[in-house]
Amino acid sequence: MSTVDLVQRVRDAYAANTAADRPEAWITLRAEDDVVRDAEALQARVAAGEVLPLAGKLLAVKDNLDVAGLPTTAGCPAFAYVPERSATAVQRLVDAGALVLGKTNLDQFATGLVGTRSPYGAVRDLRDPERISGGSSSGSAVVVAAGVADLALGTDTAGSGRVPAAFQGIVGLKPTVGTVPSEGLVPACRSFDCITVFARTLDEGRDALRVMADPVRADAPRAAPPAPVVLVPPREELLHLSESWRDAFEAAAKTLEAAGAVLRPVHLAPFLAAAKLLYEGAFVAERYAAVGEFVDAHPGEVDPVVAGIIGSARDIRAADYVRDQERLEQLRAEAMLEWGDADALLIPTTTDHPTIAEVRAAPVAVNSRLGTYTNSCNLLDLSAVAVPAGEADGRPFGVTVVARAHADAVAADVAALLGGAPLADEPSGLPLVVFG
Amino acid sequence: MSTVDLVQRVRDAYAANTAADRPEAWITLRAEDDVVRDAEALQARVAAGEVLPLAGKLLAVKDNLDVAGLPTTAGCPAFAYVPERSATAVQRLVDAGALVLGKTNLDQFATGLVGTRSPYGAVRDLRDPERISGGSSSGSAVVVAAGVADLALGTDTAGSGRVPAAFQGIVGLKPTVGTVPSEGLVPACRSFDCITVFARTLDEGRDALRVMADPVRADAPRAAPPAPVVLVPPREELLHLSESWRDAFEAAAKTLEAAGAVLRPVHLAPFLAAAKLLYEGAFVAERYAAVGEFVDAHPGEVDPVVAGIIGSARDIRAADYVRDQERLEQLRAEAMLEWGDADALLIPTTTDHPTIAEVRAAPVAVNSRLGTYTNSCNLLDLSAVAVPAGEADGRPFGVTVVARAHADAVAADVAALLGGAPLADEPSGLPLVVFG
Repeated sequence: MSTVDLVQRVRDAYAANTAADRPEAWITLRAEDDVVRDAEALQARVAAGEVLPLAGKLLAVKDNLDVAGLPTTAGCPAFAYVPERSATAVQRLVDAGALVLGKTNLDQFATGLVGTRSPYGAVRDLRDPERISGGSSSGSAVVVAAGVADLALGTDTAGSGRVPAAFQGIVGLKPTVGTVPSEGLVPACRSFDCITVFARTLDEGRDALRVMADPVRADAPRAAPPAPVVLVPPREELLHLSESWRDAFEAAAKTLEAAGAVLRPVHLAPFLAAAKLLYEGAFVAERYAAVGEFVDAHPGEVDPVVAGIIGSARDIRAADYVRDQERLEQLRAEAMLEWGDADALLIPTTTDHPTIAEVRAAPVAVNSRLGTYTNSCNLLDLSAVAVPAGEADGRPFGVTVVARAHADAVAADVAALLGGAPLADEPSGLPLVVFG
Repeated sequence: MSTVDLVQRVRDAYAANTAADRPEAWITLRAEDDVVRDAEALQARVAAGEVLPLAGKLLAVKDNLDVAGLPTTAGCPAFAYVPERSATAVQRLVDAGALVLGKTNLDQFATGLVGTRSPYGAVRDLRDPERISGGSSSGSAVVVAAGVADLALGTDTAGSGRVPAAFQGIVGLKPTVGTVPSEGLVPACRSFDCITVFARTLDEGRDALRVMADPVRADAPRAAPPAPVVLVPPREELLHLSESWRDAFEAAAKTLEAAGAVLRPVHLAPFLAAAKLLYEGAFVAERYAAVGEFVDAHPGEVDPVVAGIIGSARDIRAADYVRDQERLEQLRAEAMLEWGDADALLIPTTTDHPTIAEVRAAPVAVNSRLGTYTNSCNLLDLSAVAVPAGEADGRPFGVTVVARAHADAVAADVAALLGGAPLADEPSGLPLVVFG
């Protein structure tokens, strides 16, 4: 690796960013020359013999995660502050050699799966500007798909680190809640918040996650077994999916089977019931606990859809919250009974890819539908890897491999069986540079 | 062990019960002849070669725990139901050879540390009928102290399995929350409820707890080290204690030191702050979630003090509950920082031994004071063993040895250093029979 390589790589990224024409993906994009200077300094360290596992990886950070010296907005200008310390996850990546490009747009306060709920602009899909990017980690997903960043941090409570991965045709790794420290994250729903990573390849995402996460528990499986048992819901249970999406899902299942997985049918009912608890139940009170008083004190400065959701949680009763915790425990037991001794669960990452106009017309209903398969994951204490699985209707189609808590390696290994190659029609003007 | 021995033991227990003259300790006392029949059947099993670790131990069960076929009232006649199955903890004791004598009185819905909040009567201290028994496991503690039952189940959220042990001069073991299954327990505050056991000797209590609890975790310490480091608050921090109680507490600490413990001073501030969260914060909403709708629907059928406490939790907001969880996490971190690498913490079990009249005059304030040292234990995820430690003002004085979660064995071993002998003036007319 030469200094010229790394500096050129930064310059190419900024060129790719211009070419991608999604300025709304960024809330704070650092000046190119500043990043070039960081690249030169990094290069000097590497030249001096430092071993940095992520040396020169270009990193975008969702703007609800602190990067020292850059404003954290959480998608709300009035909320902004400039932290002195970076989030632990960010610091670990930087310490491993990643270069921060800037902070990315998001559904405000990470409340949404659409990418439209931001005063910094609705983030447009990289391929079809009429469609949504997905969210809430909207900008992070788009800048990785565009070949600008190699890695991007997201956060994921209801699917924010997976839904945009599916739409943008990239990989989104959502680890077991608690394995990546959450210091420096603006909470959305603190019991279920999780820092995630996007990458174009599974290997890059896994490398980043190894750096971000605490050491793996001694009793955690290190790999999937040779013929993993994978639960697959039957076609007729995928109620929201179009026929072409169902076809794409079945094709993904067949790919797994051809790669040696043993498929087993599963009923999603307890998973879907748990999913509904996240927004339709009392847990949304955690969003009020996090930022509700700020929202109350800043009428007109908060996205109206987000303000409506958080404000509606103001008067949720604690007794109902406690009862929802009990209900969730029951559903967790039911779901794991359904799970049995399987190694993983294959689900479509989301239900459909709406246009921005469709979301504007029914912002809550469309958002809710998109979370059908993702919402339950953190509530049920599961890990997940969202990966591309070909196309449907000429657009990226994505599936998610779910595994038990602390079986993140199993989810990633099973996801690897799907191939995980970037889409043929990689839209970035930037050739994928093999670097470092 | 002959049939005559066991039957005679049952008959002696009923005689001791009459002699103790605390009929209010029982809500349901089984007919003596029914228990005698059970004793005969048990004797036949033992004679046939069955090995039962608790064969013939006479067991009293707090009336918020199910015993198949006996009503569960939780101290409220209108709430009563007759369960088909016994609580898991009860069933494990019965399977190990314990004989159930009946169901004991309690502060209604286990809400109290006094023993007076029951329509079945305020349970009187065994030695001084003007004073409270302590609660909420009032009847259980009294019938063990009276030599009627060998073992009694209590429950403990705020100190209900420890405070009455102190007043009655017996042992109360409060295991780590979650280690004894809570199936068949009427919840009080579900996150922090814990089934406990009373006995006259530490060994009997430990034997029962081994039977009741799930297998000990592989990483749990099996014993205290030879010279355990024990945290002891300085005399001047024990604000509520009289001089004679402070003397008794210091004497207990000296006994530990003489037995080989290394004493280390500790500031109780984070423990006392956590304690206040249990009733003065939002967690009391768990009590509303458990029985609030019943209380609302049965005006006049619930103890007025209990109805006031539970009713006040009706409108607690979920966001405040969530914030109290965050606050508790902070306090847990502070408390464990204060704890450091110590093995155990010695505290007075409670603050003073009030009269029934004092409680009637200020039912909430006195109750709150009594929980000063016990309230934080389950919130901070600690285990505890309450043991007698001599006398103060001519009445039993008790201390509690606290240990980390899953270090129950450490707490019990350190408590054993205190001697744990029954008080010299054992009030029961029944000699302690060595049996089995």
